[in-house]
Amino acid sequence: MILREALFGVRRYGQLARNLGIPRPTLSARLRSLVDAGLLERVLYASGPDRYEYRLTAAGRDLLPAAALLMRWGDTYLAGPEGPPTVLRHDVCGKVTVPTLVCAECGGELTAHNVTPEPGPGFQDT
Amino acid sequence: MILREALFGVRRYGQLARNLGIPRPTLSARLRSLVDAGLLERVLYASGPDRYEYRLTAAGRDLLPAAALLMRWGDTYLAGPEGPPTVLRHDVCGKVTVPTLVCAECGGELTAHNVTPEPGPGFQDT
Repeated sequence: MILREALFGVRRYGQLARNLGIPRPTLSARLRSLVDAGLLERVLYASGPDRYEYRLTAAGRDLLPAAALLMRWGDTYLAGPEGPPTVLRHDVCGKVTVPTLVCAECGGELTAHNVTPEPGPGFQDT
Repeated sequence: MILREALFGVRRYGQLARNLGIPRPTLSARLRSLVDAGLLERVLYASGPDRYEYRLTAAGRDLLPAAALLMRWGDTYLAGPEGPPTVLRHDVCGKVTVPTLVCAECGGELTAHNVTPEPGPGFQDT
């Protein structure tokens, strides 16, 4: 949930606390975990007194496509009749986007019905 | 991890136990949770003695696109120099696929740099 907020542009501790409504010690511990995992970085943005904000790293930002598909899944299976709570606008075409997974080789859509997993070069039999 | 196995075609309790290496009470509890959540269904596949397997529901199968992007993220940020442990072959074109998220409206790629979230019709201010 912190990552979702971060992907939506929230960087300040106080705003995270308000939006998420979780106890501050829990929020602090989770932020530390996300910094340790390399998904967020803690950056000084004002001094005297020192104030820090939490910014996504490149690795954190690169979770957006997976998060967008999880949102779409939630819109299909969990959203109420009134529709999705959040939509994503594609700045390039200006439309509310329907995020769709395609094959970069042929451009066709990827679904559980036309994809087959197989061992890759780093496969290790255990 | 159970869902990943299920998306890779594993349906039997014994094979899940072997592949995942988690204690059987833990595996049983998690399978029950996934059935309760509507992602798996428990199906009789042989009788006398009765044997059950765990099949993905439509909702469970529809998690594949998000899982494919999480795999790609892991290949970028977590895989060793030997390469990804698992690859996905696209049955339609026959190639090992690079799953890519695009906008269904314009066909352009979606990234954290060109997508902006906004409240949808089901938004509720809390």
